[in-house]
Amino acid sequence: MDKLLKYKTLVKEVLASYARQGAVEPDSKEHLETQLLFDDTNLHYQVLRIGWQGIQNTFSVIFHIDIKDGKIWVQRNISDYDIIGDLEAKGIPKEDIVLAFYSPKMRPYTGYAEA
Amino acid sequence: MDKLLKYKTLVKEVLASYARQGAVEPDSKEHLETQLLFDDTNLHYQVLRIGWQGIQNTFSVIFHIDIKDGKIWVQRNISDYDIIGDLEAKGIPKEDIVLAFYSPKMRPYTGYAEA
Repeated sequence: MDKLLKYKTLVKEVLASYARQGAVEPDSKEHLETQLLFDDTNLHYQVLRIGWQGIQNTFSVIFHIDIKDGKIWVQRNISDYDIIGDLEAKGIPKEDIVLAFYSPKMRPYTGYAEA
Repeated sequence: MDKLLKYKTLVKEVLASYARQGAVEPDSKEHLETQLLFDDTNLHYQVLRIGWQGIQNTFSVIFHIDIKDGKIWVQRNISDYDIIGDLEAKGIPKEDIVLAFYSPKMRPYTGYAEA
């Protein structure tokens, strides 16, 4: 399998697994859902919590990952899941992971790819 | 063209057009970009501003639209574009548009579909 296809597949597997575990329990009174946004053309991947619980509106991007120049850019993770560790455990080397939530200036100090 | 295909095409056209008009000017010093997330399988569509300008991190979902049960659900629009008006101008009837940023309880008063 070529690297891009492997990375696309892996990112989608990991995010779908997190989304299943963290999914809102279906409840006919609630209008809250967990969405997957997987764009294999533009190479953007997202898990989103969205909707209504009574008077409370939720619109919250839990994960956002891009694949760019053959690397996995973790742009956002507001969950308790260790996505970096899980990607490495699945064989992605540090030099193919960008901690994009750190500024370009700080990235040389992360031990991961700068860009 | 069947209705679902028509609505998918139209939503993508409108969002891509907004994204082009509002796109960040390319600047080698900046790390800010406008992204399109188009998921034709799960029927979620998004425009996102993401990245870094100096020490400032941006992660901002400008538009989020779902297609559900044959209707266009406008979940979010934090831009100045009149997306509802533009969808109607392109021939989408009010009964196929859900103002999902209003709570289910308030939707009967919007003049658009409730769900």
